Amino acid sequence: MSKRPLILITNDDGISSKGISSLAEAVLDLGDIHVVAPDSPQSGMGHAVTIGEILRIKSAYFPIKGVTAHSTSGTPVDCVKLAIYKVLGRKPDLILSGINHGSNSSINVIYSGTMSAAVEGAVESINAIGFSLLDHDPDADFTNAKKVVRQMTMEVLKRGLPHGVCLNVNIPKISEGEELKGIKVCRQAAGYWEDGFDERKAPNKESYFWLTGEFTNPDKGEDTDEYALSQGYASVVPTQFDLTAHHAISELNSWGLT
Amino acid sequence: MSKRPLILITNDDGISSKGISSLAEAVLDLGDIHVVAPDSPQSGMGHAVTIGEILRIKSAYFPIKGVTAHSTSGTPVDCVKLAIYKVLGRKPDLILSGINHGSNSSINVIYSGTMSAAVEGAVESINAIGFSLLDHDPDADFTNAKKVVRQMTMEVLKRGLPHGVCLNVNIPKISEGEELKGIKVCRQAAGYWEDGFDERKAPNKESYFWLTGEFTNPDKGEDTDEYALSQGYASVVPTQFDLTAHHAISELNSWGLT
Repeated sequence: MSKRPLILITNDDGISSKGISSLAEAVLDLGDIHVVAPDSPQSGMGHAVTIGEILRIKSAYFPIKGVTAHSTSGTPVDCVKLAIYKVLGRKPDLILSGINHGSNSSINVIYSGTMSAAVEGAVESINAIGFSLLDHDPDADFTNAKKVVRQMTMEVLKRGLPHGVCLNVNIPKISEGEELKGIKVCRQAAGYWEDGFDERKAPNKESYFWLTGEFTNPDKGEDTDEYALSQGYASVVPTQFDLTAHHAISELNSWGLT
Repeated sequence: MSKRPLILITNDDGISSKGISSLAEAVLDLGDIHVVAPDSPQSGMGHAVTIGEILRIKSAYFPIKGVTAHSTSGTPVDCVKLAIYKVLGRKPDLILSGINHGSNSSINVIYSGTMSAAVEGAVESINAIGFSLLDHDPDADFTNAKKVVRQMTMEVLKRGLPHGVCLNVNIPKISEGEELKGIKVCRQAAGYWEDGFDERKAPNKESYFWLTGEFTNPDKGEDTDEYALSQGYASVVPTQFDLTAHHAISELNSWGLT
């Protein structure tokens, strides 16, 4: 058996995106790389799993040599489950998700398929990192992002992560010729989306809607991911699946519910 | 303007489920009730939002008199956003989600569309509660669940919730003639799913898969939702959208990332 770590790569932009091949390329020599990714974009799928519908999985072409690849009809979380139980036959040593085309900082973490794949890794007690570049361009420049991917992957392979924790890594868009300032450990900023819906009319006169919105961040803390990114740093937020608001338990107990 | 609270009701089992009409019935006299719910089941959708696809919303029949109802083509989180921005024209005073047919205790909270609607309420600074009955039967007996719904709704209308926190309320299945033991404030148990996939063959010989799995709970803490439910109590877990593992920040800082 190989002593090289078994690294599972997935994403939510789909197996043919530039971000996932950039991710594989950045870590190619660090382990045995298997890609199991959605066959089509799954952005905004959050922690969705496919229940009550069928799942398909197929061998797939992947542009990086030395990488085994499968595509699935499922969500990013489905991809992690299918990879473990149908493709690899065991838990990988590390799950890497991304590189997402667009930010998953602040509240975006809960809508993000990229990060949900990493969180699912934490649920399964597998070290996992989600990577996102603040650039939606399908042909974005991943040069800086790949350096961060490589550094963080080597750190996590060496040190491991605390139990129940994965990492949410966001990388700012850097102008050509400029350098990334560095990497900062942060908390998730308390931002949110001011939503809206654009209305359109179908030929039969029925209305339909497109979700739109503007990200708003009233959280001015200098320990947040938003602040680090605004200053030209990559942000690393340790991220957990325990949603319990532990600080609120004593207040609720004071209600005297019986 | 009415002084009665504006209460938005949604769910993930779809607008025609028994659980959502039971929920509306339980709180009918406590406010002005508006239902905005998926037109078809959305279980397991987690915090998915519809990006890059269109959304439809229509007036809908609802079996409880005095309730305004709309159905949407979207996920539970979409329903909350559509309700605020297209149906109600303002934020409701309270969001109630459910009553889910099946448990959303422990790790199920992150896969749950029911709970994601409540979490989206917290993101929008709206008081919100998700309710789930531990019974998948489409014709489940909601008698006990409705009492808990009513009690918790009255408490939250009276007291409000801490900022950024919603409630995850699960109600055990009680045999006929037995009584609920009471209500306990809990933390989310550290359980998980041992997944599996059932393989089938299509007529063209291609394989496809159904997600299966068994819930496993190694967390024996008596302060967990699983423990309370096993003892015949309803569980109330304060639930947050800040996924930061704050306890892991100092460890990560010790890595000396630059």
